[in-house]
This record gives sequence, structure tokens and C-alpha cells, in this order.
Amino acid sequence: MTYCVGLYLNRGLVFMSDTRTNAGVDNFSTTKKMFSWDVPGDRAITIMTAGNLATTQALISILEERSKIPTERKPTILELPTMFEVARFVGATLKQVIQGGGEDGQSATSAFKASVIVGGQIKGGMPTLFLVYPEGNFIEVTEDAPFFQIGETKYGKPILVRAYDPDMSFEDAIKLLMVSFDSTIKANLSVGLPLDMQFYGKDSFALDTQPRVTIDDPYYQSISTNWGDALRNALMHLPSYQRK
Amino acid sequence: MTYCVGLYLNRGLVFMSDTRTNAGVDNFSTTKKMFSWDVPGDRAITIMTAGNLATTQALISILEERSKIPTERKPTILELPTMFEVARFVGATLKQVIQGGGEDGQSATSAFKASVIVGGQIKGGMPTLFLVYPEGNFIEVTEDAPFFQIGETKYGKPILVRAYDPDMSFEDAIKLLMVSFDSTIKANLSVGLPLDMQFYGKDSFALDTQPRVTIDDPYYQSISTNWGDALRNALMHLPSYQRK
Repeated sequence: MTYCVGLYLNRGLVFMSDTRTNAGVDNFSTTKKMFSWDVPGDRAITIMTAGNLATTQALISILEERSKIPTERKPTILELPTMFEVARFVGATLKQVIQGGGEDGQSATSAFKASVIVGGQIKGGMPTLFLVYPEGNFIEVTEDAPFFQIGETKYGKPILVRAYDPDMSFEDAIKLLMVSFDSTIKANLSVGLPLDMQFYGKDSFALDTQPRVTIDDPYYQSISTNWGDALRNALMHLPSYQRK
Repeated sequence: MTYCVGLYLNRGLVFMSDTRTNAGVDNFSTTKKMFSWDVPGDRAITIMTAGNLATTQALISILEERSKIPTERKPTILELPTMFEVARFVGATLKQVIQGGGEDGQSATSAFKASVIVGGQIKGGMPTLFLVYPEGNFIEVTEDAPFFQIGETKYGKPILVRAYDPDMSFEDAIKLLMVSFDSTIKANLSVGLPLDMQFYGKDSFALDTQPRVTIDDPYYQSISTNWGDALRNALMHLPSYQRK
């Protein structure tokens, strides 16, 4: 499994992904699920992937044109005019990879599936996020649904629904996401640290830092430890139930 | 879907279940999923069900011996000597019902599945809870895993993991469960009010009240409304993230 979240904020975009990959509980490893590209002054694009690792790695390799020698690569996503076109291209490529895995009598098509969050901004357009399905179609973020999750989405959703605010700072967004990830990591062994983060400031047209949070990160530790107390405390201050 | 939780506390047992049943989003209804029996002074037993409604209704009907006329019924679960035997009997009956549904060329066996939480106390034993699987086998509650959930378990689990305390009062347990149910109801349309509750006080060998919480219940409303504020407040008091 996997857990990735993309948040749309008024000041830009925030991405967070875990890095655990596994085939059964006795075969797990760390792999990056967040990939970013930029052409400073023109565009910045981030993709996060969930699902079959062979599919998602193939997708990223094709997007990066790794079938060509490095000097001849001109990735299409760095040339398309709009984020909508980028989402279409990512969706078409993803669909192709999944269908390719299912050809030649291989029947495990569903096992080749993957989902993708793609977000960013291209000069002339607004920052935006898309959730791309294994079928290649996609939905775009809206004010009513201002974030996307892929992978193990359930444990970490209630806090996002309750505490998301489009005006929040990047720092508060990271705090919120860490709580959401911590709830998920505590409940599902197939989601694990380290976590990758990416900030994109609106109209910056350049990638910000992409920090990685490891298991011994003091900030993550403090969130993980203090959130339990904070929750118990919050519960204590709710009105008490009176038995009739 | 469904959501039911059984909590093991030092002072007894608490059960909560939702009442929504559905076959697709365009066909939903209210149905009771909590059933209790007692022989005052000797035993009190509560069962909660999740899964195929025909299966769970058949299970309860068989347990109540509804194939006999009312005066001739002597339900086995009211005569078995221990809760372990009750769990075995419920498991065997459940397995039989599910297998019966799959006979005669019907191939939708998985669709007939159901899971059950059974808990209570019989004179001479301690209060306990069992989680019975569709295969008829079961696990018992322990200090390390002091509650069981069935149905849509994910959204409401993080708060249970964080805030459960074996010494908590029935009133605090209801508050905790209401938050867990509210998180689930907000996220999954197939879980819905009213909620049924059952308390069992250790060594009481009799059923306590079984209140029903409807959508206009002022306590539920206040929990649902205030929990969002409480969460945001709790998050605000966590240390802030510092970008490097």
C-alpha cells in the first residue's frame, strides 16, 4: 500500500508521500513515490504514485523519456502548454502501461493498476491538482474537494476533512499532514516512513525544497507523541454523556 | 456497509452499532444490528452483526429458534455454560448459514458473508468479547486488543487507538464511541444514524438500558459539532513545523 496526499492551498500546493513498498508483509522496502520537475520561470510539476511498483516506475521512466540517451530527452510534460494537457498525457501514458502489462495472455490486469496525483503550475495558468485513475481519466481539485489522497486513504481522512483550511500556511499544512500520516502509519504496516514533502508556492514557477522526514526526525516524533495527548485532551473537553 | 464496536472495560462492556443497511446507494434502509438476551442473575449476551443482511437475520432467527412456535423455544445460547461455548455455537451457526447460501450452484458465496461481535458474561465466568469470522472461527478480546470493530472500521479507528482507556467510565466510553462513529458517518454514506447502544455492568448478569441515538439527539449533535473545533484546537496546540 501507499499513502500520498496533495493539498490545494490559496498560497500554493503541498505534497506528501510515504515511501514504503511491499509485496506481502515479508517483503518490504523503501521507494520514492514523489517526482518533481521544473523549468524555472515557466513551470513546476509534481507527481505522486500509488499502486503496482512496476507500473509506476514505468510511468515515470516514460515521462522522463529514459528510452533515449540523456542528451536527446525532451520530456513532453515539460513542453505541454497547460496542466490539463499534462494530466491528459499522464493519464494516457498510465493507461498504456497498465494495458501493456495485461497483454499477451497475462490476466492479472487489476494487479498492474496504479493511481497518480499530478499537480503544479504552468505559466499562464493557475496552480492545480489532478487525480488520475488507472483507466487514464482524471478529476481536478475544486473548492469543495480541495485535496486528493491515494493509497490507504481512510485512516487519515477524518482529520483532513475537519482541519483543512484553504488559507493555512505551509507550516500548518505540514503539521496537519503529519497527523494524517501518523494516524495511517499507526494503523497500516504497509504505509511507513520516511516521508517526502514538496512545497510549491503559487506563481513561483520553480520547485521549493523537498525535505525528507525520517523515523528519527524530532518534529515527526513530537507530533506523533503529542497528538495522542492532544486527542485525549480534546475528548475530555467535549460535553459528557448523561445516561438516562 | 455497517459500523459496530464492542469495547471491553474494567467496569464491563459497551456496544455500539449503526443501523444503515443498503444494496447500492439508491436502496437503503434502517435495520437493527444489535441483539441482546439475558437470564437475570445468570447471563447477559449481546450480538452485533455486519455483512449480508439475509445471512445476519437468518443467524439471529436461528439463535432465537424462530423455526419453533414461541412456547417451545429454548435458545441454546441461553443454556450453554460459558461464553466460549456461546462463541463456538454462534460461529458454527454463522458458517452453516453462509454455506447454505452457497449451495445448489449459487456461486456468490462471498456475497453471503457476515461477521459478528458477541459479548457478555455467564455466571462463573468473566465478561468477554469475541469477534466471529464468516468461516466460523473467532478471536477473543485481550488487554492488548481490548476492542473489536466490524464493518467500515478504518475511519473511526485512530481515535479508539489513541483515547481508549480500560478504566474509563461508561459515559466517557460513549463519548469516545460517538466521536469514532461520527468520523465514520461523515466519511461513508453506508454508515448512518440512528445508533444503538448497550451497556453491560460487570457481574450484573442483566441487561442495562439500550438507548437509541437518533439524528436529532442533542448530545450527538453537540459531539458532532464540537469535535471539529476540538480537533482544530488540538492541532493548533501542537508544535509548529519549521521549514529549513
